[in-house]
Amino acid sequence: MQLAMIGLGRMGANIVRRLMRQGHDCVVYDVNAEAVQALVAEGAVGADSIPDLVSKLQVPRAVWMMVPASLTGQVADEVAAVLEPGDALIDGGNSNYRDDVRRAAVFRESGIDYLDVGTSGGVFGLERGYCLMVGGPDAAVQRLEPIFRTIAPGPGEIERTPGRSGDFAPEEQGFLHCGPSGAGHFVKMVHNGIEYGIMAALAEGLNLLENADAGIREAQHSAEIAPLEEPEFYQFPIDTAKVSELWRRGSVVSSWLLDLTAAALNQNPTLDGLAGRVSDSGEGRWTVKAAVDVGVPVPVLAASLFERFASRDEDRFANQVLSAMRLQFGGHQELPSGDVLEAGSRRSESGKGS
Amino acid sequence: MQLAMIGLGRMGANIVRRLMRQGHDCVVYDVNAEAVQALVAEGAVGADSIPDLVSKLQVPRAVWMMVPASLTGQVADEVAAVLEPGDALIDGGNSNYRDDVRRAAVFRESGIDYLDVGTSGGVFGLERGYCLMVGGPDAAVQRLEPIFRTIAPGPGEIERTPGRSGDFAPEEQGFLHCGPSGAGHFVKMVHNGIEYGIMAALAEGLNLLENADAGIREAQHSAEIAPLEEPEFYQFPIDTAKVSELWRRGSVVSSWLLDLTAAALNQNPTLDGLAGRVSDSGEGRWTVKAAVDVGVPVPVLAASLFERFASRDEDRFANQVLSAMRLQFGGHQELPSGDVLEAGSRRSESGKGS
Amino acid sequence: MQLAMIGLGRMGANIVRRLMRQGHDCVVYDVNAEAVQALVAEGAVGADSIPDLVSKLQVPRAVWMMVPASLTGQVADEVAAVLEPGDALIDGGNSNYRDDVRRAAVFRESGIDYLDVGTSGGVFGLERGYCLMVGGPDAAVQRLEPIFRTIAPGPGEIERTPGRSGDFAPEEQGFLHCGPSGAGHFVKMVHNGIEYGIMAALAEGLNLLENADAGIREAQHSAEIAPLEEPEFYQFPIDTAKVSELWRRGSVVSSWLLDLTAAALNQNPTLDGLAGRVSDSGEGRWTVKAAVDVGVPVPVLAASLFERFASRDEDRFANQVLSAMRLQFGGHQELPSGDVLEAGSRRSESGKGS
Amino acid sequence: MQLAMIGLGRMGANIVRRLMRQGHDCVVYDVNAEAVQALVAEGAVGADSIPDLVSKLQVPRAVWMMVPASLTGQVADEVAAVLEPGDALIDGGNSNYRDDVRRAAVFRESGIDYLDVGTSGGVFGLERGYCLMVGGPDAAVQRLEPIFRTIAPGPGEIERTPGRSGDFAPEEQGFLHCGPSGAGHFVKMVHNGIEYGIMAALAEGLNLLENADAGIREAQHSAEIAPLEEPEFYQFPIDTAKVSELWRRGSVVSSWLLDLTAAALNQNPTLDGLAGRVSDSGEGRWTVKAAVDVGVPVPVLAASLFERFASRDEDRFANQVLSAMRLQFGGHQELPSGDVLEAGSRRSESGKGS
Repeated sequence: MQLAMIGLGRMGANIVRRLMRQGHDCVVYDVNAEAVQALVAEGAVGADSIPDLVSKLQVPRAVWMMVPASLTGQVADEVAAVLEPGDALIDGGNSNYRDDVRRAAVFRESGIDYLDVGTSGGVFGLERGYCLMVGGPDAAVQRLEPIFRTIAPGPGEIERTPGRSGDFAPEEQGFLHCGPSGAGHFVKMVHNGIEYGIMAALAEGLNLLENADAGIREAQHSAEIAPLEEPEFYQFPIDTAKVSELWRRGSVVSSWLLDLTAAALNQNPTLDGLAGRVSDSGEGRWTVKAAVDVGVPVPVLAASLFERFASRDEDRFANQVLSAMRLQFGGHQELPSGDVLEAGSRRSESGKGS
Repeated sequence: MQLAMIGLGRMGANIVRRLMRQGHDCVVYDVNAEAVQALVAEGAVGADSIPDLVSKLQVPRAVWMMVPASLTGQVADEVAAVLEPGDALIDGGNSNYRDDVRRAAVFRESGIDYLDVGTSGGVFGLERGYCLMVGGPDAAVQRLEPIFRTIAPGPGEIERTPGRSGDFAPEEQGFLHCGPSGAGHFVKMVHNGIEYGIMAALAEGLNLLENADAGIREAQHSAEIAPLEEPEFYQFPIDTAKVSELWRRGSVVSSWLLDLTAAALNQNPTLDGLAGRVSDSGEGRWTVKAAVDVGVPVPVLAASLFERFASRDEDRFANQVLSAMRLQFGGHQELPSGDVLEAGSRRSESGKGS
Repeated sequence: MQLAMIGLGRMGANIVRRLMRQGHDCVVYDVNAEAVQALVAEGAVGADSIPDLVSKLQVPRAVWMMVPASLTGQVADEVAAVLEPGDALIDGGNSNYRDDVRRAAVFRESGIDYLDVGTSGGVFGLERGYCLMVGGPDAAVQRLEPIFRTIAPGPGEIERTPGRSGDFAPEEQGFLHCGPSGAGHFVKMVHNGIEYGIMAALAEGLNLLENADAGIREAQHSAEIAPLEEPEFYQFPIDTAKVSELWRRGSVVSSWLLDLTAAALNQNPTLDGLAGRVSDSGEGRWTVKAAVDVGVPVPVLAASLFERFASRDEDRFANQVLSAMRLQFGGHQELPSGDVLEAGSRRSESGKGS
Repeated sequence: MQLAMIGLGRMGANIVRRLMRQGHDCVVYDVNAEAVQALVAEGAVGADSIPDLVSKLQVPRAVWMMVPASLTGQVADEVAAVLEPGDALIDGGNSNYRDDVRRAAVFRESGIDYLDVGTSGGVFGLERGYCLMVGGPDAAVQRLEPIFRTIAPGPGEIERTPGRSGDFAPEEQGFLHCGPSGAGHFVKMVHNGIEYGIMAALAEGLNLLENADAGIREAQHSAEIAPLEEPEFYQFPIDTAKVSELWRRGSVVSSWLLDLTAAALNQNPTLDGLAGRVSDSGEGRWTVKAAVDVGVPVPVLAASLFERFASRDEDRFANQVLSAMRLQFGGHQELPSGDVLEAGSRRSESGKGS
């Protein structure tokens, strides 16, 4: 089958490669001509503009956009302007599902099928396949199934879920028509929201393990600093790289994110060079906002998002306000920072009425 | 090698089976004589009391306890009373690591090696192997390594972590000497704390997906109830059984807990018959308390614990207080429960000053 | 000064009364003619339609709307249709500040000044005065200051903030021009978000006090249920009505919400008759969404919102998923509900590997 | 009545002053002889050792300790050694209520009444009075009531709670016998836990107000940084000093902590000089641990505690782990810090698959 790809960044290019390996024909375009040339060298047909790309496609056409979310609207308009009724336009990027709902309604008037495809897989997708969450009209999704089946991981060697038998359902092959326009990115959004929560659970737990030796470290500062309560219970210098490797086998928390954590800690056990200013990429925010809209409590997902904000010091004024109140009601001065503080901050003050 | 097992519940019995399959000799005891007989029929040596059990062991002896945490202290004392210097006593249950620290110090005086072994694997451990987190003195841990290696899953077919090569390290085989006495159960405790967080992340996300059709349901109640803001964005009847199956392939959230979720939802897509009163089993609580002790923030792990408390209505008085305040300052009456409330509770009231 | 009021519910009517007591002239309208008559009897000029109301005003006119947020847009359009350039339209309801930003831009084109006034005070406002958070164009705000000053509480007997002297600033009198259109309702929104957090802090703390006797109650269920760890430390039957009264004097948590809590608990110490299904009224949701938009961490405000959702069982499917997972990996059955559970749910299970 | 005071820090000394102003006799001791002299100059009887202090008291004696919690145990033992049956020993510091439970049991054997008195009031207590939460045996509490009544604020001019009439109950005078030994500090502990929650609610809300101009600031960085979604809704430069003053009048969030916040922001609107590294003083931690023990959900109180930990960078390793995972699965590099980041961190990345 034939697919056009606009946007040849890491993900777009690797999806093209995965399709070509299975015999699909790809026509490719990117604002960066070198990215086009690289894929032409691997067998793709190149295009030097969106109209050129569209002109090289058989009808009904299928055009996949894999561009930054901030550009998707503009690119979609440009493509739609040269498509014809019956063609399909696919947004495989990380768009807000609300944009899909809006765009699909617009393009529907022109007879163009608009599909939103949440795509998970990251840098490993070329080999591992991409998990595809698809939203859009039934007929178009059905027509493009060969494409989705190829991009997706397939059933692989993953143990089959008890109760399932016979032919593999689409979801067992790694793609699913989740519902009408927007449903694909909605499911992808929630997927990423969950991702934040799992990441935070692992990170918080490992941080606790990393500090399981607080009772030992405390002793080194005994002169200036009041001791940790019950330091005898915090005498464990835990090797988090080994523990994360261990948990990959037979534990309840085994997961792909744990695999990655084990790899990261094996390479760099102290994580030197990372400042711990954690970015977030939209879907975590949209997940919390959607949950608020429909009244679903998501304390864990929200907490994991807010931890990231705080990691970037977005809590600064709030913390200054807290210190200011403490100064007002108790005359409490902030502790100085520095080496002493590191130990000091791990214990509580005491004996000061408030 | 020879191992004695006290406590032949599901986990104790299956550990014995796994050991015997690999040629180890097991002497077994349980207060339930039938449980003993069942394993004798499979090749174990039976005992009818703790002294009997100990008398059937070669020195240096190794006795593994797999009993409810509330009984461990008492059983440990009974066993220790008939052990000799150089013997090893292993607690494989879900003890609080603080008890290990205390007990190890006591038994050390008698020359008995006390080991704490956090054991993860649940009902799947017999086939999959148990992930073992070991705390205790070096020499004893080393002596018992053949036992640990057999109980553990082994390297299996799990892809090796990049950067690791050569012989498989213990952690790659599924067991790890985590540190001195208590370290095993400390790491297991944190493991379970993380487990709570991952479970909550998945559960919250799936709940949001389950409510992604709020805009459709709202319409059915339009007469009495003010509409959801922007119902057009919540028109997705998502099949959570299919989505959880989908995510098992190529997604970032793939994990064993997701595998189990997919299985549960495949069997019972609406989860009928479950009341959603979620129990907790100690380690999640201990994790939060340990984090508080050492001053490590664990908002996600704590939120996941508190969700469980709230699922059992432990938040009832707090919620009554909130309703009482609202009644005081705004004259707000509680909405009646029932069918109308289900829709109504998903949207906000408006237009009432406070 | 003259003010027209549309919407004579509790707040609208009381604002009119407060204005008339200070000599202002009020022209009033409501869809409910009885509400109009009641205020006419107290000295207001009545109107039987919006055009009638507007026709009775001197230019430049000032019309205050105090209607449910869901109707504000429609009423504003009706009023604006009969206003003239230079007139002012005031929304004193609980609108989303985003609606103010949009409406103000529209009305600005017609030369009408649109003001948004967040109004706090609840049922106590008539006597206590209303705290006013005003957004809109400078000149109009200045023109209406006599109105705001009268509706606001005034400096009262509240101790003056150290460092302030001379004439009372507007904020010391209980009204403030917070910024351009939308700023008033933005500040009111955040006010309510904070209100949720303070309410939750009090409610959670009182719930803990209410359960400080867990160690006593446990003993009554000792036959079937494993004991609370360390019940000796939870032997306190605390009188929360007395404690909340106590804290009103000299404590750090003294606050108006505490005053109300003390009143509620004094009337009804067990809060019988309240189901604890807590409503929320929009602003808490908007606060969390705004914080997510600008990347400000609000874990406490969000947690307080999610507690309300959970109080209405919006966490049900999530909790069922958790129980389903536990059943899968550990064979854990849910505890039965009922009397025993009440005690049982207050302690942790133990001794079950996972 | 006569009272001995050990520990003449700010709170101990001011309690003595408050007692002497009302005609009570005070005998005072501190390791710092100057502190003793200062109070002697104001009318107290000085002592130069604990035995000296005790020798100067009439039987039955009453000794109040106001020393750092870490010293309370030692001082209590020293005092008890020279007390006699029928005497009373009072711990007014910030002790863990568990220590009271333990100590009271010990001293009970010697016939000494041990009272625990949670004392709130901070630097304002001398004038405002101290809110007293009292635990201990009935007879001793009754005997000391004149002391408690004097230290407490009294009914003051605070509006009486509806439904209360007649003589003022103790709780209306600012002191309360909360229950048996430990109950006083238990209630004080929860008080402080609530205090953390209220403080956090105010601080988070003010931080959101402080960032309500994000849409304006964004524009200044437009070259390098993708825009905030919908910057048109974040155009408000809010004056948080004025808003906190405003809310003191007629708003739902009016509270003593808000009064202090208004004072702090009036003095120093930008809070320059405060680093925002917020200390915690034990009770917040104990509150969370007690809630975990009895299974009461306290998501807001816990979140407020964890925010403080995070303000001191105790989340560092967790955040590094998160960045490490992101690097693994998506090749995401951390953003550089600095001026650009300040804007950049306020918006989300987009268009990068994960």
